[in-house]
Amino acid sequence: MTARQARARLLLSLTVEAGDPRLVEWRERADPDELWRAVRAGAGDIPDRWHEAATDAERRLDGVLRRADEVGARWVVPGSAAWPVALDDLDHLEGIGQVAGAPLGLWVRGGGDLSVIAAAPVAVVGARTCTTYGAECASDIAADCADQGHAVVSGAAFGIDACAHRGALLAGGPTVAVMACGVDVDYPGTHAALLRRIAEEGLVVSEFPPGAEPKKHRFLVRNRLIAALSVGVVVVEAAQRSGSLNTLNWADQLGRTTMVVPGPVTSQASGGTHRAVRDGKALLVTSGRDVLADTFGLVGDDVPAVGAAARRVWVRLGAEPEPLERIASVLRLGTVPVHRALRELERHGVVAGDERGWWRSAGPGGQAAVG
Amino acid sequence: MTARQARARLLLSLTVEAGDPRLVEWRERADPDELWRAVRAGAGDIPDRWHEAATDAERRLDGVLRRADEVGARWVVPGSAAWPVALDDLDHLEGIGQVAGAPLGLWVRGGGDLSVIAAAPVAVVGARTCTTYGAECASDIAADCADQGHAVVSGAAFGIDACAHRGALLAGGPTVAVMACGVDVDYPGTHAALLRRIAEEGLVVSEFPPGAEPKKHRFLVRNRLIAALSVGVVVVEAAQRSGSLNTLNWADQLGRTTMVVPGPVTSQASGGTHRAVRDGKALLVTSGRDVLADTFGLVGDDVPAVGAAARRVWVRLGAEPEPLERIASVLRLGTVPVHRALRELERHGVVAGDERGWWRSAGPGGQAAVG
Repeated sequence: MTARQARARLLLSLTVEAGDPRLVEWRERADPDELWRAVRAGAGDIPDRWHEAATDAERRLDGVLRRADEVGARWVVPGSAAWPVALDDLDHLEGIGQVAGAPLGLWVRGGGDLSVIAAAPVAVVGARTCTTYGAECASDIAADCADQGHAVVSGAAFGIDACAHRGALLAGGPTVAVMACGVDVDYPGTHAALLRRIAEEGLVVSEFPPGAEPKKHRFLVRNRLIAALSVGVVVVEAAQRSGSLNTLNWADQLGRTTMVVPGPVTSQASGGTHRAVRDGKALLVTSGRDVLADTFGLVGDDVPAVGAAARRVWVRLGAEPEPLERIASVLRLGTVPVHRALRELERHGVVAGDERGWWRSAGPGGQAAVG
Repeated sequence: MTARQARARLLLSLTVEAGDPRLVEWRERADPDELWRAVRAGAGDIPDRWHEAATDAERRLDGVLRRADEVGARWVVPGSAAWPVALDDLDHLEGIGQVAGAPLGLWVRGGGDLSVIAAAPVAVVGARTCTTYGAECASDIAADCADQGHAVVSGAAFGIDACAHRGALLAGGPTVAVMACGVDVDYPGTHAALLRRIAEEGLVVSEFPPGAEPKKHRFLVRNRLIAALSVGVVVVEAAQRSGSLNTLNWADQLGRTTMVVPGPVTSQASGGTHRAVRDGKALLVTSGRDVLADTFGLVGDDVPAVGAAARRVWVRLGAEPEPLERIASVLRLGTVPVHRALRELERHGVVAGDERGWWRSAGPGGQAAVG
């Protein structure tokens, strides 16, 4: 990806509303730079509104970049080392409603490396108007996931989302807030301190440019990123028509592990989650342990827990041998800690290695046994 | 079934502990009268303990019958019109633990007709040490089932069981208490008034003879009858090792619909029910409506609710035509109310009839559409 392509993607993101399914079609026909030039020129069958917005985009570009600089946000695009490749899965879906496609790029605010943090993250989302019960569940599950080295992804909203972020932060783990507005916009306003904290210890990301206001439609657009970034999605509380169920839907389409926490049947806040279980759309989970077991197939009281690095390595490993250097490179870890992690897993009898590399062994509890 | 056979079964029930799997074997080899004579004579490979107990049984018989008379209990055996044939399914199972087989007969206390009440009953069982949440759920679900004409079966224990019986009674529906002691024994003692009420408006049944005391093992033996008598079994609250899960297990083996009500994951009383969902042993239900939908395939906001008689007729109907007279006879209803019920169902487009009889129609919502 050249700087020119990255700039074209940025200008396109200022021109076309994120999630517009026509963008998927267009990107199949042209690379971002070609597409940007076509939009700029109003060529052929480019939608009129795109062409009209293009001039404005060029005019706004400097202001956007200046604003990004002020909050320390950077523009990350596909092909760059920091790009979380899991997002590309979105390009292979039909989409939901009038939303489709991988984002043109991501604005990333915070010191972390998104592709590292997103190695094996779990999303914990749910109702804004949650109960104290839901708040406790979200916080506990997020803490358990963070404690095991998994980043917790959520939407920084009131209620469950905020509890998920806070739970992860309290456990000392990274957390990622995916915004329906610019990464510089404190939304909701009362979460300004929380968002600052997330940016300090984790990441605040968005496909909307700095300065973009949250709009109703943008929450649905944003939800697909929460699902795509994560290996598993847990909905803690959701009423029957909650937006969290939209996230669950995206996760389901993307083949992510979909989970819900049950609650009292007398609680409307659990109406949507119970429905999801009844409809076969989600697994029932009761704890962080259940979440990790269902998402990563890691279970077993009989196998001692392993450290966070070993868990990350384990998640990466498959049945085929993979060279240590490649594992280290993909996980953005040094070869020394990866080797240490592999030895730890080997002691538990769940991985094996030879001159070709390392793989999950078929030994006792091999395929599904790190707890 | 002759009176002699009924007496032989009764004497055997005073001789051999109910649920003894050896009884299944023996009954395959001899009819009850032959078996009783063999036991009485200590013939061949009859277990010594059975032979020793036989004399005692004959001595006790008069007292048992007198006690039964005092509480208005009758001895019902297979082959009699009042026998609920669903219990015979137990003879085709391996059994669980050291328990197997259909009962030799049932003591029935109360004015109702067991085979009628047991036309399409639902069992609602659960923890003795339930929460107020569980109590409310059990009561509501039982009331909903009773309201739709389904008898509610339970075990008359503290907690969920008592709430289930009370819920059904309050809704004016019949309820069946299946005891782990004699039908004349008020256990637990504080449920004496409840048991009297159940006997007045429903039935108290047991395979243990009048005077039999509840013993730990007998609860497990009794559980198989709760499951076998019912079309569906709902566990409302159960800790991880609750006896209710044993009932669920029987229901699962018998091919009954197995269901659990979720609760807060922070509640130990819902630990066993959540586990059952995670293990694929039970469906999650949130209401009486869910229970009836999952058990009888009756759903649909689009189809108006039908009366209790129509529902009973609907449950009976299959894909093959069945003559009205036979439906009426099996359901112990007059031909006039059955005809009225069939017309009601026909108006909803879910049944059809011709000179051969009546069946569930494949029309709009036909197979699964009475709510």
